[in-house]
Amino acid sequence: MSIPFTSLVNKLPATTPFVGPETLERQNNNTKFKARIGANESAFGISPKAIKAMQESLPYSSWYADPESYELREALADVHGVKMHEICVDAGIDSLLGLTVRMLVPEGGKAVTSKGAYPTFNYHVAGFGAELITVPYKGFHEDPNALLQATLEHQAPLTYFANPDNPMGTWHNASAVSDLINAIPENTVLALDEAYIEFAETPIAPPIDTSNPRVIRFRTFSKAYGMAGQRIAYAIGHPDLISGLNKIRNHFGINRVAQIGALASVQDTDFLPQVRESVQQARAKVMDFASARNLYAEPSYTNFVAVDLESTDKAKAMIEHLAKNGVFMRMPGVEPLNRCIRVGLGSDAEFETFVGAFDAF
Amino acid sequence: MSIPFTSLVNKLPATTPFVGPETLERQNNNTKFKARIGANESAFGISPKAIKAMQESLPYSSWYADPESYELREALADVHGVKMHEICVDAGIDSLLGLTVRMLVPEGGKAVTSKGAYPTFNYHVAGFGAELITVPYKGFHEDPNALLQATLEHQAPLTYFANPDNPMGTWHNASAVSDLINAIPENTVLALDEAYIEFAETPIAPPIDTSNPRVIRFRTFSKAYGMAGQRIAYAIGHPDLISGLNKIRNHFGINRVAQIGALASVQDTDFLPQVRESVQQARAKVMDFASARNLYAEPSYTNFVAVDLESTDKAKAMIEHLAKNGVFMRMPGVEPLNRCIRVGLGSDAEFETFVGAFDAF
Repeated sequence: MSIPFTSLVNKLPATTPFVGPETLERQNNNTKFKARIGANESAFGISPKAIKAMQESLPYSSWYADPESYELREALADVHGVKMHEICVDAGIDSLLGLTVRMLVPEGGKAVTSKGAYPTFNYHVAGFGAELITVPYKGFHEDPNALLQATLEHQAPLTYFANPDNPMGTWHNASAVSDLINAIPENTVLALDEAYIEFAETPIAPPIDTSNPRVIRFRTFSKAYGMAGQRIAYAIGHPDLISGLNKIRNHFGINRVAQIGALASVQDTDFLPQVRESVQQARAKVMDFASARNLYAEPSYTNFVAVDLESTDKAKAMIEHLAKNGVFMRMPGVEPLNRCIRVGLGSDAEFETFVGAFDAF
Repeated sequence: MSIPFTSLVNKLPATTPFVGPETLERQNNNTKFKARIGANESAFGISPKAIKAMQESLPYSSWYADPESYELREALADVHGVKMHEICVDAGIDSLLGLTVRMLVPEGGKAVTSKGAYPTFNYHVAGFGAELITVPYKGFHEDPNALLQATLEHQAPLTYFANPDNPMGTWHNASAVSDLINAIPENTVLALDEAYIEFAETPIAPPIDTSNPRVIRFRTFSKAYGMAGQRIAYAIGHPDLISGLNKIRNHFGINRVAQIGALASVQDTDFLPQVRESVQQARAKVMDFASARNLYAEPSYTNFVAVDLESTDKAKAMIEHLAKNGVFMRMPGVEPLNRCIRVGLGSDAEFETFVGAFDAF
């Protein structure tokens, strides 16, 4: 029996970027986690206006969404001070990263990232038959200089950089990011993943300049807006970059209810400040928790905090122990980051469950 | 200024498979259509159990969906008498068609379809740099023999066939489809699009045989289940075909609320029979409408009816006239099908709006 897979698909391993918490629950006799703080999902709610708009739109689920996401792009263009045709809405940054790889990196081409950074980028690079070039983190930070050097050395058409970073929660300030953008060579595009940017305590996003074709920026409703399960995000970039995405995206791929919820979220200007405040408080609690136990916690501009357990074995054992005690948590997969556990910010009850299980270790 | 697009993306035109009704409304001073019967969306509701389940799940939109769609695949496997690992859930048949093309057709390879059949398949074939081979319809029916001959002649790894067909609503019976499946050569996979299968008045789906690696079947919640805007569908096939999809799909690409709604829809066994009855009645009304005007309407097993206006110019003028009079309708794009308009089954009020506008032409 032979299936006529492409040679690329024949070679691909059957991997997935992440194991979901439901899979772990099923492996544990369907015991539901008491604290779900491993996937950087928001514990700080959804805009009540978005919930209301989504509720009202459910009976219209029989209609496809507007494939142009016109109203949403109009609102986003206004927020970001760009033109509508400089925005592409799609079903999550994961999907946008796939399109971006496909649009820029030919089979056999190269893409650059940091070793230990967001695995779904790597999944897409492999999935389109390209070679992944990685550079090490510098301590617990992505290293813009190393990314730039690798980009130049390999003449890579695409380089990935997240600010703030996942899985470490670290960041570079706006001028450092601007320096990287300005140094990107002519035949490269920088994929600047700003999924967590709304959680930053100080302004670290450089001004958006869509006249520059060498950077494409990603924003999402999955994190601060609390809509990961709705799958909606967008890219901002030079019109030619956005046109490239429009040539290959799945035009009718966006959930209608998600699109309506995203629009209501953007319009609810009261919502994000509340989330930011809750997140700052929850981060402070994790910092205090770590310091009370003489552990180093890395300051974070995201909705999770990396806590250093000083040994990979210990971190792995802790993740397993936590899972057995009702806490879903993940840890970085690569040295030297994998001495840490990534403590997601949860509700007060989730945090207490975590602390109890941690201290029982 | 140069963007390092792949040579393929550089060559691609900026086309989309369809223009959405919202675009037409914007072009018409934001006048909303009174009858939205052009995109084969269902006018016969969503399972009340699905609506309830989706409503209850909205506040959990901050959680990603289970990337394994375990419970949904379990329920679907039970319905279809197959194993869970013979099912792949994804965000709509459009997305599954893209993955299937990508998995089987290399750049420069060939894929076969009928001239005038579902354009989104063609969009993906172009998008992955493959060559589209088309065969003509036979009258208003897809022609399985012609598809088979072209497949053999071009040694194409992928051939698309929809049963029932869109845009004509016609069908082949189960034995004819079985004959096609059995004749598919070893190095080809038949993509059997059964998006409209639940609307068939007689059983036209051949038995599902997942031991056969030469066919992959697509089913959706977009049509009979009335959830097009939720973007959820699935493929059924040989485990190796499903593994291929799993190697490249966007594992966290499914909307959590959609997944929950789909599961509730499958479990609501009362729902589909009601929809089927409403659809049969609505089809009969369109047949009567045509016959009262001495027009030929093609018998349909879908939620739309092709009505022959005997001239392409007349059909085009009618579509424009209808749009100006509040009726969103589409027509087939290719000869000899484009003498017809595709009358989507709507609510009673939508149908009356359509009839009024039609008769005023």
